[in-house]
Amino acid sequence: MVRLQVRQAELAPFAMNICTSIVGRTKAEVLNQVKALVAEKPDVLEWRADFYEDLKASEQVKALAGEIREAAGEIPVIFTIRSEREGGEPIQLQEAEKVALIETLAATGALDIFDYELSGGKAHIETVKAAVQAYGAKLLLSFHDFDKTPEPDVLQTILSDCEAYGADIGKVAVMPHTSRDVLQVHEVTLAAVENARIPLITIAMGRLGAPTRITGASFGSALTFAAGEQSSAPGQVPLGLMQGVQQVLGDDAGRLS
Amino acid sequence: MVRLQVRQAELAPFAMNICTSIVGRTKAEVLNQVKALVAEKPDVLEWRADFYEDLKASEQVKALAGEIREAAGEIPVIFTIRSEREGGEPIQLQEAEKVALIETLAATGALDIFDYELSGGKAHIETVKAAVQAYGAKLLLSFHDFDKTPEPDVLQTILSDCEAYGADIGKVAVMPHTSRDVLQVHEVTLAAVENARIPLITIAMGRLGAPTRITGASFGSALTFAAGEQSSAPGQVPLGLMQGVQQVLGDDAGRLS
Repeated sequence: MVRLQVRQAELAPFAMNICTSIVGRTKAEVLNQVKALVAEKPDVLEWRADFYEDLKASEQVKALAGEIREAAGEIPVIFTIRSEREGGEPIQLQEAEKVALIETLAATGALDIFDYELSGGKAHIETVKAAVQAYGAKLLLSFHDFDKTPEPDVLQTILSDCEAYGADIGKVAVMPHTSRDVLQVHEVTLAAVENARIPLITIAMGRLGAPTRITGASFGSALTFAAGEQSSAPGQVPLGLMQGVQQVLGDDAGRLS
Repeated sequence: MVRLQVRQAELAPFAMNICTSIVGRTKAEVLNQVKALVAEKPDVLEWRADFYEDLKASEQVKALAGEIREAAGEIPVIFTIRSEREGGEPIQLQEAEKVALIETLAATGALDIFDYELSGGKAHIETVKAAVQAYGAKLLLSFHDFDKTPEPDVLQTILSDCEAYGADIGKVAVMPHTSRDVLQVHEVTLAAVENARIPLITIAMGRLGAPTRITGASFGSALTFAAGEQSSAPGQVPLGLMQGVQQVLGDDAGRLS
């Protein structure tokens, strides 16, 4: 079974890794959040940079990335500019500028994983992939649907696409309307990890989808996003509660055969 | 959708009710446990009477049932003599004596729900059902497999049988060996509650099956058993953690359509 070591975290199917997000708007907010979150010992941190006030000031963003790295110690950091159409905050950058910023940041070596959306398209994905992987960082390709849960074969194709595009990690987050939708996310994940050569992260959002955040590791998901000081997506569970659940499920939460 | 009101608890599909078990061997242990558990505010209590030292002393058992009732206040109490072959403690009673004890206890009105195993057979089930329901209590028919997870159609049949035999509540607890087994328990539950006219409780035991205890309500299970002072079955999650999860999932944890 695939295992991806990123600093102190091991991303693998059925491994219960918990990530919390940094959603500060200013440098001070970002650094205060990192400090507060690190004290709670998440396995992974995500810098949701779309919350940051000035992504055009790339020198400051680079410097801030370095300070986050220092404060995070050996906790791996995911860099994410979630697009507005996939649930992120409005930003000033065009897609090409976003890609350029990722290239700049990858070169610093401060950040471990770069989240880029599948919807960015083949050309941008290839640029991002080359830049990220050239500097030894990992590429996470992601897909979000805030309206619905796509059919199982569509979800399956999206997860395969992440791998086909050369991602090191694939991620899908969808909106369920029924418990059947939620179960479907579990089912697709369990089927996908049987053949996937990269760790996959799958989430059904909202309160209805909370089981995928709480026990998703038992069905093969490699990472769950919990709420630190502030939630960064609908349905997130408090970090402390997730850590309690992790103790119950164990480090190796599930089993294929 | 079916809803079964038992004192302050409402057992229904997708309702997150938490039960903790009394597993004392002596009267003093039983009453101390009830007192300690009631303080933690479970939704339901279960008296696992197979742990009790002397079930042959039916007058003392009756008296103890009354004291449990008094200490439990408005928390409904399930009376269970789990058989040794289904994971219970060894007891001195023959099956007919067990049935007679249930009849005696039902008549006291102290206990709200009586758990009887499907494996007890048709004749005993009918006697228990008549006695229990004549006194306004509820019949819970249960099935346990500590070795494996039966195939989905077998599980489905067992749940239907509970209803066909006239139970007010049906319960299945099985042992999973893979995450697929666990998912299967969720799937069968979600399919079963669509047509069931009684609340159903489904559990995959052990650490691997813990998701069914933690988020089973999201897939239609009406009750989860959590560990109070002492666990009464493998894989039980601490009550406090379950109550934290309950707050996240909400009272109405799932949705069929």
